[in-house]
Amino acid sequence: MDKYKVTHRLLKQSIKSLVNRQLTSNNPIYRSISALPLGSGGRNPQLYRSFGSLATKVERNPSFSSLNSDDVSYFKGVLGENNVVQDEDRLETANIDWMHKYKGSSKLLLLPRNTEEVSKILEYCNSRRLAVVPQGGNTGLVGGSVPVFDEVIINAGSMNKIIAFDKVSGILVCEAGCILENLISYLDNQGFIMPLDLGAKGSCQIGGNVSTNAGGLRLVRYGSLHGNVLGLEAVLANGDVLDMLGTLRKDNTGYDLKHLFIGSEGSLGIVTKVSILTPPKLSSVNIAFLACEDYLSCQKLLSEAKRKLGEILSAFEFLDSHAMDLVLNHLEGVRNPLPSAVHNFYVLIETTGSDESYDKEKLEAFLLHSMESGLISDGVLAQDINQASSFWRIREGVPEALMRAGPVYKYDLSIPVEKMYSLVEEMRLRLGQSANVVGYGHLGDGNLHLNVSAPRYDDKILAQIEPYVYEWTSKHRGSISAEHGLGLMKANEIFYSKSHETVQLMASIKKLLDPHGILNPYKVLPHSLCSYS
Amino acid sequence: MDKYKVTHRLLKQSIKSLVNRQLTSNNPIYRSISALPLGSGGRNPQLYRSFGSLATKVERNPSFSSLNSDDVSYFKGVLGENNVVQDEDRLETANIDWMHKYKGSSKLLLLPRNTEEVSKILEYCNSRRLAVVPQGGNTGLVGGSVPVFDEVIINAGSMNKIIAFDKVSGILVCEAGCILENLISYLDNQGFIMPLDLGAKGSCQIGGNVSTNAGGLRLVRYGSLHGNVLGLEAVLANGDVLDMLGTLRKDNTGYDLKHLFIGSEGSLGIVTKVSILTPPKLSSVNIAFLACEDYLSCQKLLSEAKRKLGEILSAFEFLDSHAMDLVLNHLEGVRNPLPSAVHNFYVLIETTGSDESYDKEKLEAFLLHSMESGLISDGVLAQDINQASSFWRIREGVPEALMRAGPVYKYDLSIPVEKMYSLVEEMRLRLGQSANVVGYGHLGDGNLHLNVSAPRYDDKILAQIEPYVYEWTSKHRGSISAEHGLGLMKANEIFYSKSHETVQLMASIKKLLDPHGILNPYKVLPHSLCSYS
Repeated sequence: MDKYKVTHRLLKQSIKSLVNRQLTSNNPIYRSISALPLGSGGRNPQLYRSFGSLATKVERNPSFSSLNSDDVSYFKGVLGENNVVQDEDRLETANIDWMHKYKGSSKLLLLPRNTEEVSKILEYCNSRRLAVVPQGGNTGLVGGSVPVFDEVIINAGSMNKIIAFDKVSGILVCEAGCILENLISYLDNQGFIMPLDLGAKGSCQIGGNVSTNAGGLRLVRYGSLHGNVLGLEAVLANGDVLDMLGTLRKDNTGYDLKHLFIGSEGSLGIVTKVSILTPPKLSSVNIAFLACEDYLSCQKLLSEAKRKLGEILSAFEFLDSHAMDLVLNHLEGVRNPLPSAVHNFYVLIETTGSDESYDKEKLEAFLLHSMESGLISDGVLAQDINQASSFWRIREGVPEALMRAGPVYKYDLSIPVEKMYSLVEEMRLRLGQSANVVGYGHLGDGNLHLNVSAPRYDDKILAQIEPYVYEWTSKHRGSISAEHGLGLMKANEIFYSKSHETVQLMASIKKLLDPHGILNPYKVLPHSLCSYS
Repeated sequence: MDKYKVTHRLLKQSIKSLVNRQLTSNNPIYRSISALPLGSGGRNPQLYRSFGSLATKVERNPSFSSLNSDDVSYFKGVLGENNVVQDEDRLETANIDWMHKYKGSSKLLLLPRNTEEVSKILEYCNSRRLAVVPQGGNTGLVGGSVPVFDEVIINAGSMNKIIAFDKVSGILVCEAGCILENLISYLDNQGFIMPLDLGAKGSCQIGGNVSTNAGGLRLVRYGSLHGNVLGLEAVLANGDVLDMLGTLRKDNTGYDLKHLFIGSEGSLGIVTKVSILTPPKLSSVNIAFLACEDYLSCQKLLSEAKRKLGEILSAFEFLDSHAMDLVLNHLEGVRNPLPSAVHNFYVLIETTGSDESYDKEKLEAFLLHSMESGLISDGVLAQDINQASSFWRIREGVPEALMRAGPVYKYDLSIPVEKMYSLVEEMRLRLGQSANVVGYGHLGDGNLHLNVSAPRYDDKILAQIEPYVYEWTSKHRGSISAEHGLGLMKANEIFYSKSHETVQLMASIKKLLDPHGILNPYKVLPHSLCSYS
C-alpha cells in the first residue's frame, strides 16, 4: 500500500446522522423502536423487539441479581473511581449500538486497565450472579455488544498497549482494547499490515474483532482469524485467566482451545490479549473495475483470477446493476467508470504484490485475456490513487446508497459461489414490483449481501422474505451469518446453519465454561437452550 | 508444479529397513523394545517403556472392559465378516507404529465403510466400556495411532471416497480415509493442490492429518489446517454424529467447534468427513540453495524473503553445517552444490507463482541483492528438475542420514525464530564431545528439528538433554511439539507448553465429550488428569 492508500471505511458518521434523521421521521420501524419500553433494569420482566425482522421475545434471566451500592463500591475499590462509570450520558452511548437498533439499560460501565482487573470483576460478578456484556468498539451489527437488560458493561478500551512486535516473524502481541486502525498505523511504520481490514477500523477493538471472528476485506488473501490469531489470553466467567498467548506458527500440544474464543462473541470468556501473525506490507497495489454480462461470467472470472493472478489477488468484490443504479442515484459525485453500455454485473479486482511492473503487466495480461474470451465486456484499470478510490467508493458506497434509498432489509449470507446469485433472482421473482432486490458482496469469499429496498417496512414484505431467505440458505448449506455473528438478532435462528447436535454441544460447552450464564446472556445460543443455575 | 514435480517424500522404505536392521543389532534402544512384554491384553496391569527418552509408565485403565466373543459377533453383524479383522499378521502391523517404537496388543481391527458404521461401533464400545484407538495411515511419530494395551483399532481406510469438488471455490469434500497422495493426484487433474504436503503422503489419511493438525512443507505459504479445513463431520464417543461439514469460507454462526477436532489426536471424536479449501495449482516453481555464514544472516534473509518474494515464497528451510556433513557422509550420490568453501548454514528457498519469467526474475534479483548485502555468501538456482530434486534431497535427507549415523535423540520444537538456534548452540556446549548436535528444519515457520546424534543410547547423555530441552523451550514460550503432536510420547510433558488452567480445561472438555475416556486413552492429556468413570 506504499503507492497509495485506499480508504475502505464506511462513512460512519453520515450513516449515523441518517439513522438519527429516520428516528424522527414517520418510518414505522424506527417509530416502533422509540415507542418501545427500552430497557427494564430488572423491573420490566419482558421485552419485545421488532426491528423489521420477525419479533424477538427475550425474558430477563430471573436468576441474575440486580446491581446494588455494595457492588459499585467493590468495583470502585478494584478499578478506582474514574473507571467505574455511572454518568448517564456515557451510559446512554454504551447502552446503544451504532445502528441504533438495540438498546439496553445498564447502570454501570466498567473500564478495567489490565487482565487482573478483568479477572477480579468477573470473579465478583460470577459469585454475585451479575450478568455482564463485554464491549469493544461497539460497532457490531447484530446487537451482540450492548446490554439487553441491565447487564454490567465491561469495556476493554483502556487496555490498549502493544506488548511486543517481532519484525522477523511479523508476530504482534497486544492488549484487547487496541483499536484496529491504531494497530494498522503502528504496523505501517514497521513495514507490516494487519491481516484484517474493516469499515469500522477507526472504532473497533482487536479483542472484539477476535471475539466476533471479524471478516472484512482481506480475508480472500489472508484467510480468517482462526488462521491468523496465534494465541490469546482470556478471562473465564469465574475469573480464571487462561494464558494461551502463544507466538508460534506451529504448536501441536493438545487441544487448540483459543479457537473457542474466536467468534464466540464474548459468551465463553473475555479476550484480554491477542497474538497475531501480520503479513509484510507489499509495495504494489492495482485495482480494476470490470463489467460482466451474466453471473456465470463473474464466477468464471473468479476461477480464472485465482489461477492467473493467484498469489497477488487481494480482493474480488461484485455488485449487480441494481446496486450500481442505487449508488449512481443516491451518492453524490459517483459516476460509472464503464458508462458506454448497461451492464448486469460489475466486479472489482485488487492485486497486492511485491513488484509494481510485474504485477501490473500480469493484471493487464489477465484482463486482456478475459476480454478476448468474453468473460468481461468492458473494464478499466485505475491509473492513480483517485481512480482507485473512486472504484472502491462504488463498491463500498452500496450500503450507504441503500440507506439513503429508504427502508432496507439486510441479510449477510455465505452461499456456495455457484448458487449465490440464484437467491437474488428468486427473491426478485417472489417480491415482484413490491421491492428492489439488490445483490453485492465479497464474491471471492462466497459472501453475499442480499438487501431488499422497500418503499416502507411492511409485514407482508417481511413475510415474503423470512423465513424463506434462511430456509433457502440452509437448504444450500449456506450460513445465515457470514461475518456479522449471531448476537441477539439471530441467536434463535442458529438452527438454520447448525445441526441440533452441534448446537447442543455448544450449549454444553457454554455451561462448562460459564455455569451461571453471566457472560453476554441472550446472545449467540438459542434462548430455549439456555438453562440457568 | 507443472514444470516439474519435486518429490518431498521421505524414503520410508529405506528407513523401515534401517529400523529393522537396528532391531536385530546391539543397539540398546531397540533391544529394550524387543525385550519388553509388549502388550498386555488386559492381563499385564503395568507397562514400562523406555525409548531413549525418560521412562513413561502407563497403567491400563481398570474401568475398561476386555473384548469377548459377543463383542466380535456384534461387530461382524454391523460391519460384515471381512471388515472385522482378527488375523494375527494384520493385527501385528496395526499394533505397531512405523518407527517400531510403540507396540500395542489389540486383538481387533475394525474397518468401517461409512459414518453410520463408525457411529454404531462407538455407541457400542461406549456402552461396553471398550477403549478404541482411531487409526489412519499410522504414520505418526509420537505413538498416537497405535494401541497402548488392548484397545480396539478403528481404521478409516475403507472410507476413501471423494464426495464433491467445486472448481469455482476449490473446495474439496471427502471421506476421512482418503490417502493424502490420492487427493493430491485427484486435485492435480483438476488444476488444484492440497494446502498441505508431507513426507508420509503415500500412506497418511486426510482424517489423520486433520486429527493431528499435520504441518508439513506448505504451511509457510498456505497456513495450518485450522485455516484450511472449512468443515468436518465427527463421531463422538457415544456415537452421536456431529455434522459440521460446511463448505464456506465465512460462517459466523456460533462456536466453531470443528477446531476442537483439529489436532486433538482422535481423543474427542473420530473425524469421518472433511471439507477443505484447496489452492489453484500455479505453473512456476523455482528453487535456490544458499549459504549463510551465521544464523543472524539466515534470520535477516527470512525477513527479506518475506518482503521481497512475499506472495510467491512457498518454502524457507535451513540446515546447519553439521547436518550437511551428515548428509554428505551417509547418503549416496548427494553432493554439496556449494563446495567452494565451508559454510555454517544452508538455506533452501522455494517460490511458487503464476508466471515463470516474472517469478524467476524476481528471485534472481532477490538473490543478487542478498549477495551484495552480504546476507548470503554463495548460492545456486536450480536449472532443471534434477537440480531441484537434488537440493530437496539434501534438506529431506537429513533425518535419513541421522538414522544411518547411529542412535539419535529427536526433538520437534517451535521456538521464536530469533532464539531458535541458541538452543542448538547451548546443547553443543552442554554435551561437548559426547554427541553431535544437529539443527535443521522449517525456518519459515519457526520449527526447529533438534537432533542429537550419539555413539550409543546413554542415560547420561539423555539426562543432559532432558528435561533441559523442554525447560529451555518452555522458558522461551516455545512448543515442545511443533507438528508431531503429543500422543503417548509427550502426554505427560504437556505442562512445558500449556498452562495448568488450560490443561485443566482440556481435561474438562475431554470429560464432557468422552465421559468414559474410551477414545484414544493414555494419549494427549497427562495421565494424572485422566479420571475414569
